[in-house]
Amino acid sequence: MHALEKTLARASGKTQVSAGEIVLADVDLAEVNDLYLQVIKSFHELGGEKVRHPGKTSFVFDHYSPAPTIKAADNHKKMREFCAGQGIPHLFDIGEGVCHQVLTESGMVGPGTIVVETDSHTTTMGALGAFGTGVGATDMATILITGKLWFKVPRVMNIVFEGTPPKGVMAKDMILHAIGDLRQDAAIYKAVEFSGGTVREMAQEERFVLCNMAVEMGAKAAYIAPDGITLDYLSCYGWKGGEIPATDPGYEYDSVVRYDVSSLSPRVALPGSVDAVSAIPEERIPVDQVFLGTCTGGRLNDIRVAAEILEGKRVAPGTRFVVIPASRRIFQDALLGGYIETLVNAGAVLSTPGCGPCLGAHEGILAPGETCVTTSSRNFPGRMGSTEADIYIASPATAAATALMGRLCGADSL
Amino acid sequence: MHALEKTLARASGKTQVSAGEIVLADVDLAEVNDLYLQVIKSFHELGGEKVRHPGKTSFVFDHYSPAPTIKAADNHKKMREFCAGQGIPHLFDIGEGVCHQVLTESGMVGPGTIVVETDSHTTTMGALGAFGTGVGATDMATILITGKLWFKVPRVMNIVFEGTPPKGVMAKDMILHAIGDLRQDAAIYKAVEFSGGTVREMAQEERFVLCNMAVEMGAKAAYIAPDGITLDYLSCYGWKGGEIPATDPGYEYDSVVRYDVSSLSPRVALPGSVDAVSAIPEERIPVDQVFLGTCTGGRLNDIRVAAEILEGKRVAPGTRFVVIPASRRIFQDALLGGYIETLVNAGAVLSTPGCGPCLGAHEGILAPGETCVTTSSRNFPGRMGSTEADIYIASPATAAATALMGRLCGADSL
Repeated sequence: MHALEKTLARASGKTQVSAGEIVLADVDLAEVNDLYLQVIKSFHELGGEKVRHPGKTSFVFDHYSPAPTIKAADNHKKMREFCAGQGIPHLFDIGEGVCHQVLTESGMVGPGTIVVETDSHTTTMGALGAFGTGVGATDMATILITGKLWFKVPRVMNIVFEGTPPKGVMAKDMILHAIGDLRQDAAIYKAVEFSGGTVREMAQEERFVLCNMAVEMGAKAAYIAPDGITLDYLSCYGWKGGEIPATDPGYEYDSVVRYDVSSLSPRVALPGSVDAVSAIPEERIPVDQVFLGTCTGGRLNDIRVAAEILEGKRVAPGTRFVVIPASRRIFQDALLGGYIETLVNAGAVLSTPGCGPCLGAHEGILAPGETCVTTSSRNFPGRMGSTEADIYIASPATAAATALMGRLCGADSL
Repeated sequence: MHALEKTLARASGKTQVSAGEIVLADVDLAEVNDLYLQVIKSFHELGGEKVRHPGKTSFVFDHYSPAPTIKAADNHKKMREFCAGQGIPHLFDIGEGVCHQVLTESGMVGPGTIVVETDSHTTTMGALGAFGTGVGATDMATILITGKLWFKVPRVMNIVFEGTPPKGVMAKDMILHAIGDLRQDAAIYKAVEFSGGTVREMAQEERFVLCNMAVEMGAKAAYIAPDGITLDYLSCYGWKGGEIPATDPGYEYDSVVRYDVSSLSPRVALPGSVDAVSAIPEERIPVDQVFLGTCTGGRLNDIRVAAEILEGKRVAPGTRFVVIPASRRIFQDALLGGYIETLVNAGAVLSTPGCGPCLGAHEGILAPGETCVTTSSRNFPGRMGSTEADIYIASPATAAATALMGRLCGADSL
């Protein structure tokens, strides 16, 4: 069995499961974000009275935080009241950060846990060896009431990265390259495991980027086999440990795809679709706004890379550089490292840890006709505001280089 | 003549003006904020083609910055295009801060200048010895076209503060006390001069608070006679100097009101009206959100005071503490001083320099039934979101003490 299969088997009281089978599994951690007041409504509609496992439930206010509208403020208030009434201890209020980052820092997610959130990028959890997936309001309400959810055991495809990436090439470039090659429907109802020498050498923060973006090729879950780097990260954030399921030797993957990244150049997803991936276009593309942030591009390493590029320099006139740390902890670490000071001195516009403009909620919405380079994960028309704005997805290094030059460019060209 | 009269006389080419007279004066600095796209529309409707004095014109994006909606983003875009087309050099884009603070740091405002902005709190400029007042879109469009505006020379009332304020009592408490005593219509079409030993000893940052809040008693303009403290501030921000008009000995004020602040306790404006001022109520008032920021409460000194109160401590559970520096410069200085780190470590939620939730735009809107303590200037129903939220106006010290305790309380009671 694959480690993810062992995880689903353990959680559903079985010794053996196989791909395609439907299991009813205990959920180790359920998370509701502030887009999903509907979870509470569905909870009541389904006859819910008491949350089954308050200690395994969390709420994170990230999509509309701090509240930009009365409606959002009222949703937050209703969620706080629900948590208080149900004895849910893990309420991460405004300013704590993006749910996926907050949970990876919570000490509650580790190898072999099942994490379900009301957000598709829950695949991020795979970088800690967990089975993480996103659901809608009704499924989440069911988890709150019963503590369980059904899962169809996914096939696992394996993406292998080998080689040392050149200067200015990050995990984001690698995963964009893979998505562009395999396309956005490549992993529908599959899990994606990332492996290979490049991944083994990769910092934990970069590993999150691979698993996070796996959902952009349709993946139900993602996975990277835990190793010393994973365990270091986990112990740093208070993970208590537990049995670590490992994939059996000889496990047969649904498919195996290999990439040599040693000659990869920085990638961008061109406006309109995450799988329209190319090298950075040669023509001059002026950029109105650069956004460094989100669950896929706002970690400490991302901020550090940007600060190194902008140290002692200035953001280009006519370009706005919005920087949003993915969590309070990252913000604190970035303050400590002096990266925030460097970026603000360079002209960056800092905002509150959370999702920010990623989903077009606030803190940097795009006007018609504007061009944005973002470290986030989606660029369909209207994602960050106007449907007439162009959004390029890129790595933090490319974002910072673009902010410096005022036109789309990679850090390799500086 | 009063110094403000001399200022209006100089700017209108006269040697003498007197209260009640209408003059047509040259405007030294005109500022449009991002609430006022209408200025550009009116400019065109009035037949405007070229801005008369681009170098004396500025735009500041503060009320909706970074843009929380497509409409706001599009307004910003149109304003950028107008500035580019008209050769207006002083465009302060998102993240630069609140217009009044940005202009006091610009080196363009000093004693004897006439500053007109599309915001009522332009009275702030009086703390630098300038004549500052707010106008609407049509008046501003007229200034852009002609470089001039008509003014009715105001009578001047004199508020004299004497005595050394007790611990935990700030300029905000003094001006709230005066507004509560004199009421919000006390200075309609008058200018208010602040003087007395307390003001002479007061840091420049605190002086801004007095002049800023003068509009809350209806003042057209405010004034504090420039002294060494003013000149130090001005030279720090690049003011080139110029003739400093001084009030003639024997000038007869419209009225003189005196307050001894040596036994003043912290004040609050009770929900609903800025002139419903009292000592801090004795009953326990739990607070959902505290907001430290704005043109009257987000300066370096305000942030420093809050950081000192929260150093090594934690914001009370169940209370949100939103902190927004009034400008990029203040943010940079607060980073340098370690105050941002202290506040974020204590649990504060930092957001982008600008007006934030002061006017209910974004970054901390209030839900129905919530209670907020704010360092801002207005608390009528609906100002910060829901009309069913209660807003108490208080000093930064009171705000920080409240954030620490989770209930309305003054720093004097810690």
